[in-house]
Amino acid sequence: MPGTVHRFGACKVTREEVVEFASKYDPQPFHLDDEAAAKTHFGRLSASGWHTAAMTMGMLVENMKDNRQAGLGSPGIDELRWVRPVYPGDTLRVENELLSKRRSRSRPDMGILKSATRVYNQNDEVVMTMISNGLVSVRDPSAPIEE
Amino acid sequence: MPGTVHRFGACKVTREEVVEFASKYDPQPFHLDDEAAAKTHFGRLSASGWHTAAMTMGMLVENMKDNRQAGLGSPGIDELRWVRPVYPGDTLRVENELLSKRRSRSRPDMGILKSATRVYNQNDEVVMTMISNGLVSVRDPSAPIEE
Repeated sequence: MPGTVHRFGACKVTREEVVEFASKYDPQPFHLDDEAAAKTHFGRLSASGWHTAAMTMGMLVENMKDNRQAGLGSPGIDELRWVRPVYPGDTLRVENELLSKRRSRSRPDMGILKSATRVYNQNDEVVMTMISNGLVSVRDPSAPIEE
Repeated sequence: MPGTVHRFGACKVTREEVVEFASKYDPQPFHLDDEAAAKTHFGRLSASGWHTAAMTMGMLVENMKDNRQAGLGSPGIDELRWVRPVYPGDTLRVENELLSKRRSRSRPDMGILKSATRVYNQNDEVVMTMISNGLVSVRDPSAPIEE
Protein backbone atom coordinates (compact mmCIF):
# COMPACT_ATOMS: atom_id res chain seq x y z
CA MET A 1 0.00 0.00 0.00
CA PRO A 2 1.28 3.50 -0.79
CA GLY A 3 2.48 5.18 2.39
CA THR A 4 3.88 1.94 3.79
CA VAL A 5 7.40 2.41 5.20
CA HIS A 6 9.86 -0.46 5.51
CA ARG A 7 12.94 -0.09 7.69
CA PHE A 8 15.84 -2.46 7.18
CA GLY A 9 19.53 -2.93 6.69
CA ALA A 10 22.74 -2.52 8.56
CA CYS A 11 25.59 -2.01 6.13
CA LYS A 12 28.98 -1.46 7.69
CA VAL A 13 31.16 0.82 5.58
CA THR A 14 34.76 -0.36 5.59
CA ARG A 15 37.79 1.67 4.64
CA GLU A 16 39.06 -1.16 2.46
CA GLU A 17 35.87 -1.26 0.41
CA VAL A 18 35.64 2.56 0.14
CA VAL A 19 39.13 2.67 -1.37
CA GLU A 20 38.55 -0.40 -3.56
CA PHE A 21 35.30 0.97 -5.05
CA ALA A 22 36.80 4.43 -5.57
CA SER A 23 39.94 3.02 -7.19
CA LYS A 24 37.81 1.28 -9.79
CA TYR A 25 34.99 3.72 -10.40
CA ASP A 26 35.55 7.10 -8.76
CA PRO A 27 39.28 7.74 -8.30
CA GLN A 28 39.04 11.28 -6.95
CA PRO A 29 41.63 12.12 -4.24
CA PHE A 30 39.10 12.60 -1.40
CA HIS A 31 37.86 9.01 -1.89
CA LEU A 32 41.36 7.54 -1.91
CA ASP A 33 43.71 9.49 0.29
CA ASP A 34 43.45 10.82 3.86
CA GLU A 35 45.65 13.86 3.38
CA ALA A 36 43.94 14.93 0.16
CA ALA A 37 40.52 14.46 1.77
CA ALA A 38 41.52 16.58 4.80
CA LYS A 39 42.06 19.54 2.47
CA THR A 40 38.50 19.40 1.11
CA HIS A 41 35.04 20.10 2.59
CA PHE A 42 34.71 16.33 3.17
CA GLY A 43 37.18 16.67 6.06
CA ARG A 44 38.34 13.09 5.77
CA LEU A 45 38.27 10.07 3.50
CA SER A 46 34.67 9.53 2.31
CA ALA A 47 32.87 7.01 0.16
CA SER A 48 31.96 7.69 -3.45
CA GLY A 49 28.29 8.64 -3.71
CA TRP A 50 27.93 5.83 -6.24
CA HIS A 51 29.32 3.44 -3.67
CA THR A 52 26.69 4.63 -1.20
CA ALA A 53 24.04 4.08 -3.88
CA ALA A 54 25.42 0.58 -4.54
CA MET A 55 25.45 -0.32 -0.83
CA THR A 56 21.86 0.96 -0.62
CA MET A 57 20.88 -1.26 -3.55
CA GLY A 58 22.41 -4.20 -1.70
CA MET A 59 20.10 -3.52 1.26
CA LEU A 60 17.08 -3.03 -1.04
CA VAL A 61 17.70 -6.35 -2.81
CA GLU A 62 18.07 -8.17 0.51
CA ASN A 63 14.75 -6.68 1.63
CA MET A 64 13.07 -7.71 -1.64
CA LYS A 65 14.25 -11.27 -1.07
CA ASP A 66 12.93 -11.20 2.49
CA ASN A 67 9.56 -10.13 1.06
CA ARG A 68 9.70 -12.67 -1.82
CA GLN A 69 9.35 -9.83 -4.30
CA ALA A 70 10.61 -10.61 -7.81
CA GLY A 71 12.35 -7.50 -9.10
CA LEU A 72 12.76 -7.05 -12.85
CA GLY A 73 15.10 -4.11 -12.95
CA SER A 74 14.39 -0.41 -13.02
CA PRO A 75 13.66 2.18 -15.71
CA GLY A 76 15.41 4.79 -13.59
CA ILE A 77 15.71 7.19 -10.70
CA ASP A 78 13.73 10.44 -10.57
CA GLU A 79 16.00 12.14 -8.03
CA LEU A 80 19.09 11.18 -6.07
CA ARG A 81 20.60 13.40 -3.40
CA TRP A 82 23.87 12.91 -1.55
CA VAL A 83 23.07 14.84 1.60
CA ARG A 84 26.05 14.10 3.86
CA PRO A 85 29.40 12.36 3.37
CA VAL A 86 29.61 8.66 4.21
CA TYR A 87 32.77 7.71 6.08
CA PRO A 88 34.56 4.43 6.77
CA GLY A 89 33.22 3.12 10.06
CA ASP A 90 29.67 4.33 9.37
CA THR A 91 26.78 1.87 9.48
CA LEU A 92 24.00 2.60 7.00
CA ARG A 93 20.33 1.67 7.18
CA VAL A 94 17.35 2.28 4.92
CA GLU A 95 13.83 3.62 5.24
CA ASN A 96 11.85 2.81 2.12
CA GLU A 97 8.42 4.35 1.52
CA LEU A 98 6.14 3.12 -1.24
CA LEU A 99 4.79 6.20 -3.04
CA SER A 100 2.69 4.53 -5.73
CA LYS A 101 2.21 1.32 -7.65
CA ARG A 102 0.65 0.69 -11.03
CA ARG A 103 0.51 -2.00 -13.72
CA SER A 104 2.53 -1.49 -16.85
CA ARG A 105 0.22 -0.93 -19.84
CA SER A 106 2.73 -2.20 -22.38
CA ARG A 107 3.67 -5.22 -20.21
CA PRO A 108 0.70 -6.23 -18.02
CA ASP A 109 2.85 -8.93 -16.40
CA MET A 110 4.85 -6.13 -14.76
CA GLY A 111 4.09 -3.60 -12.06
CA ILE A 112 5.93 -0.33 -11.51
CA LEU A 113 6.62 0.72 -7.93
CA LYS A 114 7.71 4.27 -7.12
CA SER A 115 9.53 4.56 -3.81
CA ALA A 116 11.18 7.20 -1.65
CA THR A 117 14.35 5.82 -0.13
CA ARG A 118 16.13 7.51 2.76
CA VAL A 119 19.51 6.26 3.92
CA TYR A 120 20.69 7.04 7.45
CA ASN A 121 24.01 6.64 9.23
CA GLN A 122 24.46 5.37 12.79
CA ASN A 123 23.77 8.89 14.14
CA ASP A 124 20.35 8.90 12.45
CA GLU A 125 21.54 11.55 10.02
CA VAL A 126 20.25 11.28 6.45
CA VAL A 127 23.18 10.65 4.10
CA MET A 128 21.29 9.93 0.86
CA THR A 129 17.76 10.11 -0.52
CA MET A 130 16.29 8.94 -3.79
CA ILE A 131 13.00 8.57 -5.63
CA SER A 132 13.25 5.36 -7.63
CA ASN A 133 11.10 3.31 -9.99
CA GLY A 134 11.23 -0.45 -9.80
CA LEU A 135 9.71 -3.10 -12.04
CA VAL A 136 8.27 -6.15 -10.33
CA SER A 137 6.64 -9.31 -11.53
CA VAL A 138 2.85 -9.21 -11.08
CA ARG A 139 1.55 -12.20 -9.11
CA ASP A 140 -1.59 -12.56 -11.28
CA PRO A 141 -1.00 -11.15 -14.79
CA SER A 142 -4.53 -12.16 -15.89
CA ALA A 143 -6.14 -9.81 -13.34
CA PRO A 144 -7.59 -6.66 -14.95
CA ILE A 145 -5.53 -3.48 -14.78
CA GLU A 146 -6.95 -1.12 -12.17
CA GLU A 147 -7.50 2.47 -13.28
CA MET B 1 30.24 27.16 -21.98
CA PRO B 2 26.69 25.74 -21.70
CA GLY B 3 25.88 23.67 -24.78
CA THR B 4 29.43 22.34 -25.06
CA VAL B 5 29.48 18.58 -25.63
CA HIS B 6 32.45 16.41 -24.70
CA ARG B 7 32.75 12.90 -26.09
CA PHE B 8 35.05 10.43 -24.39
CA GLY B 9 35.55 7.03 -22.92
CA ALA B 10 35.77 3.44 -24.00
CA CYS B 11 34.82 1.18 -21.13
CA LYS B 12 34.82 -2.52 -21.92
CA VAL B 13 32.19 -4.39 -19.90
CA THR B 14 33.50 -7.77 -18.78
CA ARG B 15 31.43 -10.70 -17.61
CA GLU B 16 33.71 -11.17 -14.61
CA GLU B 17 33.17 -7.59 -13.43
CA VAL B 18 29.39 -7.71 -14.09
CA VAL B 19 29.09 -10.76 -11.84
CA GLU B 20 31.51 -9.39 -9.22
CA PHE B 21 29.66 -6.07 -8.92
CA ALA B 22 26.26 -7.74 -8.82
CA SER B 23 27.39 -10.28 -6.22
CA LYS B 24 28.35 -7.46 -3.89
CA TYR B 25 25.71 -4.83 -4.55
CA ASP B 26 22.85 -6.10 -6.71
CA PRO B 27 22.50 -9.88 -6.38
CA GLN B 28 19.39 -10.30 -8.51
CA PRO B 29 19.34 -13.49 -10.63
CA PHE B 30 19.45 -11.74 -14.04
CA HIS B 31 22.74 -10.04 -13.08
CA LEU B 32 24.33 -13.29 -11.87
CA ASP B 33 23.08 -16.28 -13.82
CA ASP B 34 22.63 -16.95 -17.56
CA GLU B 35 19.67 -19.27 -17.24
CA ALA B 36 17.77 -17.00 -14.86
CA ALA B 37 18.46 -14.00 -17.12
CA ALA B 38 17.18 -15.86 -20.20
CA LYS B 39 13.78 -16.16 -18.52
CA THR B 40 13.42 -12.37 -18.08
CA HIS B 41 12.94 -9.45 -20.46
CA PHE B 42 16.73 -8.87 -20.25
CA GLY B 43 17.19 -11.97 -22.44
CA ARG B 44 20.66 -12.65 -21.10
CA LEU B 45 23.03 -11.75 -18.30
CA SER B 46 23.11 -7.96 -17.93
CA ALA B 47 24.97 -5.47 -15.76
CA SER B 48 23.40 -3.85 -12.72
CA GLY B 49 22.25 -0.33 -13.58
CA TRP B 50 24.34 0.88 -10.63
CA HIS B 51 27.34 -0.81 -12.21
CA THR B 52 26.67 1.07 -15.45
CA ALA B 53 26.44 4.30 -13.43
CA ALA B 54 29.73 3.45 -11.68
CA MET B 55 31.50 2.70 -14.98
CA THR B 56 30.15 5.99 -16.33
CA MET B 57 31.55 7.82 -13.30
CA GLY B 58 34.91 6.22 -14.03
CA MET B 59 34.88 7.73 -17.53
CA LEU B 60 33.69 11.12 -16.19
CA VAL B 61 36.51 11.26 -13.62
CA GLU B 62 39.10 10.34 -16.26
CA ASN B 63 37.79 13.16 -18.46
CA MET B 64 37.91 15.63 -15.53
CA LYS B 65 41.55 14.71 -14.99
CA ASP B 66 42.29 15.18 -18.69
CA ASN B 67 40.74 18.65 -18.40
CA ARG B 68 42.52 19.41 -15.10
CA GLN B 69 39.16 20.04 -13.45
CA ALA B 70 39.13 19.67 -9.66
CA GLY B 71 35.89 17.97 -8.71
CA LEU B 72 34.55 18.38 -5.19
CA GLY B 73 31.78 15.82 -5.19
CA SER B 74 28.14 16.15 -6.11
CA PRO B 75 24.94 17.19 -4.34
CA GLY B 76 23.02 14.75 -6.49
CA ILE B 77 21.41 13.58 -9.68
CA ASP B 78 18.20 15.15 -11.02
CA GLU B 79 17.26 12.22 -13.24
CA LEU B 80 18.80 8.87 -14.14
CA ARG B 81 17.35 6.58 -16.81
CA TRP B 82 18.43 3.05 -17.64
CA VAL B 83 17.28 2.94 -21.23
CA ARG B 84 18.68 -0.39 -22.48
CA PRO B 85 20.38 -3.35 -20.82
CA VAL B 86 24.19 -3.38 -20.73
CA TYR B 87 25.70 -6.77 -21.54
CA PRO B 88 29.12 -8.34 -21.02
CA GLY B 89 31.14 -7.64 -24.16
CA ASP B 90 29.64 -4.15 -24.63
CA THR B 91 31.92 -1.12 -24.87
CA LEU B 92 30.48 2.05 -23.37
CA ARG B 93 31.26 5.67 -24.21
CA VAL B 94 30.00 9.01 -22.95
CA GLU B 95 28.63 12.21 -24.39
CA ASN B 96 28.54 14.90 -21.74
CA GLU B 97 26.77 18.19 -22.37
CA LEU B 98 27.18 21.16 -20.03
CA LEU B 99 23.70 22.55 -19.33
CA SER B 100 24.57 25.36 -16.93
CA LYS B 101 27.20 26.59 -14.53
CA ARG B 102 26.92 28.91 -11.56
CA ARG B 103 28.86 29.92 -8.48
CA SER B 104 27.73 28.59 -5.13
CA ARG B 105 26.34 31.43 -2.97
CA SER B 106 27.10 29.68 0.30
CA ARG B 107 30.58 28.61 -0.85
CA PRO B 108 31.94 31.11 -3.39
CA ASP B 109 35.05 28.96 -3.82
CA MET B 110 32.84 26.37 -5.51
CA GLY B 111 30.99 26.24 -8.80
CA ILE B 112 28.04 24.01 -9.62
CA LEU B 113 27.92 22.44 -13.07
CA LYS B 114 24.73 20.84 -14.33
CA SER B 115 25.32 18.30 -17.09
CA ALA B 116 23.36 15.96 -19.32
CA THR B 117 25.21 12.68 -19.69
CA ARG B 118 24.36 10.14 -22.37
CA VAL B 119 25.99 6.72 -22.36
CA TYR B 120 26.13 4.71 -25.59
CA ASN B 121 27.10 1.14 -26.38
CA GLN B 122 29.22 0.03 -29.36
CA ASN B 123 26.10 0.04 -31.58
CA ASP B 124 25.53 3.75 -30.82
CA GLU B 125 22.42 2.87 -28.82
CA VAL B 126 21.76 4.94 -25.71
CA VAL B 127 21.94 2.69 -22.64
CA MET B 128 21.79 5.32 -19.87
CA THR B 129 21.11 9.02 -19.47
CA MET B 130 21.39 11.30 -16.48
CA ILE B 131 21.16 14.94 -15.44
CA SER B 132 23.80 15.48 -12.77
CA ASN B 133 25.13 18.27 -10.60
CA GLY B 134 28.83 18.51 -9.93
CA LEU B 135 30.79 20.74 -7.58
CA VAL B 136 34.07 22.07 -8.86
CA SER B 137 36.79 24.22 -7.41
CA VAL B 138 36.62 27.79 -8.77
CA ARG B 139 39.94 28.88 -10.26
CA ASP B 140 39.62 32.46 -8.89
CA PRO B 141 37.42 32.54 -5.75
CA SER B 142 37.98 36.30 -5.34
CA ALA B 143 36.24 37.05 -8.66
CA PRO B 144 32.74 38.49 -8.22
CA ILE B 145 29.79 36.14 -8.61
CA GLU B 146 28.04 36.67 -11.94
CA GLU B 147 24.30 37.12 -11.79
